[in-house]
Amino acid sequence: MAAEIPTTREECEARDRADPLAAARAAFALPEGVIYLDGHSLGPATHEALKRVQTAAQHEWARGLIRSWNDAGWFELPRTVGAKLARLVGAQADEVVIADSVSVNLFKLATAALPLARGRVVIVEDSEFPSDQYVAEGIAGVTGAELMRVSASKGADTLARTGGVQIKSAVNYRTSLVEDIAATEAVAAQAGGVVVWDLSHATGVLNLQLNAHNAKLATGCTYKFVNGGPGAPSFIYARGDFASRMQSPISGWFGHATPFAFDAGYRPLEGVGRFAAGTPGVLSLSALDAALSAFDGVAMSDVAAKARALGDLVVARTAALGLESISPADSRKRGGHVSVRHADGYAVTQALIARGIIPDFRAPDAIRFGVAPLYMRFVDVWDGMDQLADILATRAWDRSEFMRRSAVT
Amino acid sequence: MAAEIPTTREECEARDRADPLAAARAAFALPEGVIYLDGHSLGPATHEALKRVQTAAQHEWARGLIRSWNDAGWFELPRTVGAKLARLVGAQADEVVIADSVSVNLFKLATAALPLARGRVVIVEDSEFPSDQYVAEGIAGVTGAELMRVSASKGADTLARTGGVQIKSAVNYRTSLVEDIAATEAVAAQAGGVVVWDLSHATGVLNLQLNAHNAKLATGCTYKFVNGGPGAPSFIYARGDFASRMQSPISGWFGHATPFAFDAGYRPLEGVGRFAAGTPGVLSLSALDAALSAFDGVAMSDVAAKARALGDLVVARTAALGLESISPADSRKRGGHVSVRHADGYAVTQALIARGIIPDFRAPDAIRFGVAPLYMRFVDVWDGMDQLADILATRAWDRSEFMRRSAVT
Repeated sequence: MAAEIPTTREECEARDRADPLAAARAAFALPEGVIYLDGHSLGPATHEALKRVQTAAQHEWARGLIRSWNDAGWFELPRTVGAKLARLVGAQADEVVIADSVSVNLFKLATAALPLARGRVVIVEDSEFPSDQYVAEGIAGVTGAELMRVSASKGADTLARTGGVQIKSAVNYRTSLVEDIAATEAVAAQAGGVVVWDLSHATGVLNLQLNAHNAKLATGCTYKFVNGGPGAPSFIYARGDFASRMQSPISGWFGHATPFAFDAGYRPLEGVGRFAAGTPGVLSLSALDAALSAFDGVAMSDVAAKARALGDLVVARTAALGLESISPADSRKRGGHVSVRHADGYAVTQALIARGIIPDFRAPDAIRFGVAPLYMRFVDVWDGMDQLADILATRAWDRSEFMRRSAVT
Repeated sequence: MAAEIPTTREECEARDRADPLAAARAAFALPEGVIYLDGHSLGPATHEALKRVQTAAQHEWARGLIRSWNDAGWFELPRTVGAKLARLVGAQADEVVIADSVSVNLFKLATAALPLARGRVVIVEDSEFPSDQYVAEGIAGVTGAELMRVSASKGADTLARTGGVQIKSAVNYRTSLVEDIAATEAVAAQAGGVVVWDLSHATGVLNLQLNAHNAKLATGCTYKFVNGGPGAPSFIYARGDFASRMQSPISGWFGHATPFAFDAGYRPLEGVGRFAAGTPGVLSLSALDAALSAFDGVAMSDVAAKARALGDLVVARTAALGLESISPADSRKRGGHVSVRHADGYAVTQALIARGIIPDFRAPDAIRFGVAPLYMRFVDVWDGMDQLADILATRAWDRSEFMRRSAVT
């Protein structure tokens, strides 16, 4: 039963006092004077992650040198950190490994899935995150599989009809729409198709149940709601029985069963480990390892419930300002961010940032407000929306320094 | 004209005093009581790299948050760090980009080279670094190209005969043998073949001249003689005119001409930038950026000359101990490490490590001594060899704690 949406700052304070996740905020090194509504793009640092980066660099690397591959457990990090992340996505500990980036992992998984699918087709919806569309294009180019780029309304039909391999986000990067993983997997199972889930905007904010929902393959980034750090390495999930039937196209030594035996022939690890490839980036992996500790003892159902409640507050307040939301009003169909349209959305975003309220912007006109449940309070959202109201009322965004665009927003 | 090989510790001291690279050692945070002869596996930290990791984490990530993609130059790092590395390999600044791991980059480059080669063949020699052999196997699997794994003596013939794509190390990981890049490229040009160079054991220690030697494609790791940190990201070199005719199989958004325009279709960057794929790991990239500063003002010809001289000293002293070298005696054909055989090489390595002398071991019987010119002194090599002599004379390695093997040595 969802609680009422707060209508005053006092009601927000009351909600914060009753928040079962209230204690989690203390783990984060949030800068003073900032309300950070961009956790769906780059999560903030935790104190433990900052400390760990220093330990990994100063102690393990500088002092331990090569010995740290054994002594500091570097060699096992892709699997130990994967095991830690597995709970967040509803997987078994040995079904997740950390490796590479989402783009590289989508390539590996979808390419390796093609021989197991009925149809030699790569499907991607045209509302997908652009990089996922680009990767699909590249896979078709190198494998000769047919590329089918279809509208979102045709995705399930195409999967059902072709039995191909679909690359699909669980939460849309722009609208925040949540896909029904179980329903899509049922279509795939019926059709002989395979879905490769991109969980970038879902991991760490939804109560994902990959095993229970029959998901076979997934990847996702860890620098958003998982707070692993800028460009933190990605994870790969492959269901145990499925993984061992697959061949990664990028058969690097870290996916080998015995990499340091230096065998001539490639013999992959059992399970998901075979999708690791080259030497892992230890500094980034270490930060991610520590960042995941912020989820220790936290129920993902609480996380998801709070994301829905905070999102409802954004939806209600932006609606009151006359802004059109492109995110679902029904919080059960919405991820951890809310996107609203404004013709000068870029400038509005810049004006907010100048006041220490940090959302982000996606072309052509979407302002995205992320509501990361571990550190975001109801009063933060309330105060941020107050500033937005003031900026709109005073047209404070309509100034030249806010209208200039730069490469990344 | 090569100087004489020192025959006493005093002569080593004299060589150190005359060393044009003597000042470079101060940049490194070397632990007390350690003689580090493993720079060919994992380079040590520089003070600047340690400081930079902290700045990137504490300041840019924790305080700057998402704003650092612009304000701290994160977005440009793959290209700015690539430009810095370019001088080390004899390339133009815009011909190098930092991305992913060597395994992933070998996959991208060799797969993309296939359509430009006369023969649809992937060639790899059976003495190649095993991961390179595994990657070649994977490429053949996914593209349908023929895999030809040949003995080292047949590599050039096979390239000449097939006009295929060869993955080839410039310095052999085991023997340290240096390949003649210009000669191999001449064979490739004549045959319509393409060579993808793996420069992992060459970069930062040889005076590489990729442009002058007509190399078209290369990758290499940055955690050995470049000292970028454990699992630091790899680099990709692609000659300007050649790169723009290639299509990366992994077409992620960081290789897109305008990633944040979020176009539906993939339009690659001009040149080598198209081989970037996913979001770069900023913490690791930042460490690498700072590590490269240790090469500022250093002539790579001095680096290569000192590596030859230090290597000669290892060769001479190990020969005097009756150890068989599998590295070339001719220093012009030898990279930055010297490998010697010992039936109980693993235990000997462990006994050395217990005394603070750190080489490494490669199965079945090779002890590798790395001589990284930026921080290694002649007296260090001398003292390390003294310890080796003592261990062999007293059979100090023949103890159970040194005989136990672990995953990584």
